[in-house]
Amino acid sequence: MACALDNIRVVLVGTLYTGNVGSSCRAMANMGIRNLVLAAPNLQNGWDEGERLAVHATDILANRREVATLEEAVADCVAVVGTTARGGLYRQHVRAPRDCAAELLRMAEDGPVALVFGREDKGLTNEEIAQCTHLIRIPVDEGYTSINLAQAVLVTCYEFFVASGKYQPPHEKACAAPQAQKMQLMKNWAEMLEKIGFMQSVQREHFMQGFHRVFSRGVYTKDDAALLLGVARQAIWTASHTS
Amino acid sequence: MACALDNIRVVLVGTLYTGNVGSSCRAMANMGIRNLVLAAPNLQNGWDEGERLAVHATDILANRREVATLEEAVADCVAVVGTTARGGLYRQHVRAPRDCAAELLRMAEDGPVALVFGREDKGLTNEEIAQCTHLIRIPVDEGYTSINLAQAVLVTCYEFFVASGKYQPPHEKACAAPQAQKMQLMKNWAEMLEKIGFMQSVQREHFMQGFHRVFSRGVYTKDDAALLLGVARQAIWTASHTS
Repeated sequence: MACALDNIRVVLVGTLYTGNVGSSCRAMANMGIRNLVLAAPNLQNGWDEGERLAVHATDILANRREVATLEEAVADCVAVVGTTARGGLYRQHVRAPRDCAAELLRMAEDGPVALVFGREDKGLTNEEIAQCTHLIRIPVDEGYTSINLAQAVLVTCYEFFVASGKYQPPHEKACAAPQAQKMQLMKNWAEMLEKIGFMQSVQREHFMQGFHRVFSRGVYTKDDAALLLGVARQAIWTASHTS
Repeated sequence: MACALDNIRVVLVGTLYTGNVGSSCRAMANMGIRNLVLAAPNLQNGWDEGERLAVHATDILANRREVATLEEAVADCVAVVGTTARGGLYRQHVRAPRDCAAELLRMAEDGPVALVFGREDKGLTNEEIAQCTHLIRIPVDEGYTSINLAQAVLVTCYEFFVASGKYQPPHEKACAAPQAQKMQLMKNWAEMLEKIGFMQSVQREHFMQGFHRVFSRGVYTKDDAALLLGVARQAIWTASHTS
């Protein structure tokens, strides 16, 4: 099924190390984004490391496009999203990826949207920033703001993947226990706790308030309640056969 | 200033490669999380790669604690959060990190909260999963669900960092232009467009609706409006001196 994620393009500008390209490919695959362009690559090592770190995303690496300039990489794009770790005069309108991913995905329904990542050591130049229609900065701690290139690719793609709604969050298969089952549970536990000699009838209200509190701490399922009911039943049976 | 993030502990179980430990240290530093424990490490290579990939987070690497078991690594924790890429019988109550980070940070105000990451090849065992009070799964595309260990550490820590509110998102320094300034802009542009011969008075309403549409596309600031006003003023001046 075609979706807006298919129109997201990762553009790496002036990248130095093939390992970062390979790790970016894997990160892209994890997040359902498959279009890679290297603009003015400046690679300092061989592709063996890049291929090793791409692991099962070597198809993205093999299908990459290489062009001479950022301009060429984004000529057909309806939005060009630069990533920057710095502030400054031309970088004041920067936003967090989470705050603009949904809007940019809507644009990606009309045409390609480029996510542009700069050099490992120097990021994007002011000339390259000037070509961007949007700027984003990944939230990082002030104590260490320099984020690895492939890690930046991952977080950015992750925000687009989550915003796309393609991912369905996991949820409990079993239903939450209904109130009647919970009350039944309390009743059986009260009986059990008297039978095993944990409490006297006169203490019943006091102790059962405590157990009610314990069993109200979080959501529990029909299966959870059935399990706890089983304990009560067995303890009652055992107590009646050993006394 | 102490904050809940200081009580977040990253626990790597049975890790095979020092590079992943080093990259995890950098990712943790990026996200303001500094406590690392290696439980039952099974390292297959030397620390030179780990130290190289930690870059400026070698202090986290140097201050790591190494223990023999997961049990030992989390004995003092008020919550033990396992990460898993798989579903299955004991993994049904898994949640996305974004859906539980805030709740777990509140728990971290009371004591240490462990984020537990399994082996590169096999993740966490069922015995280890059984020690976890919470389970999370990072949203990933079904086409490639295996995420690199350090990448998983990054995304998870990122969600906790963002939920902590420690990061202040960037925002425009200049204020949005007030309506009166926008109306002044339209008036000056109308005058300018007539002066330079772009439109006749009779077409004024038609064309100005078009420009009003263009200038209403997004938020623009006082500085943006001042810039466009300057263009109109200069064009009017030039037109009056060349005709």
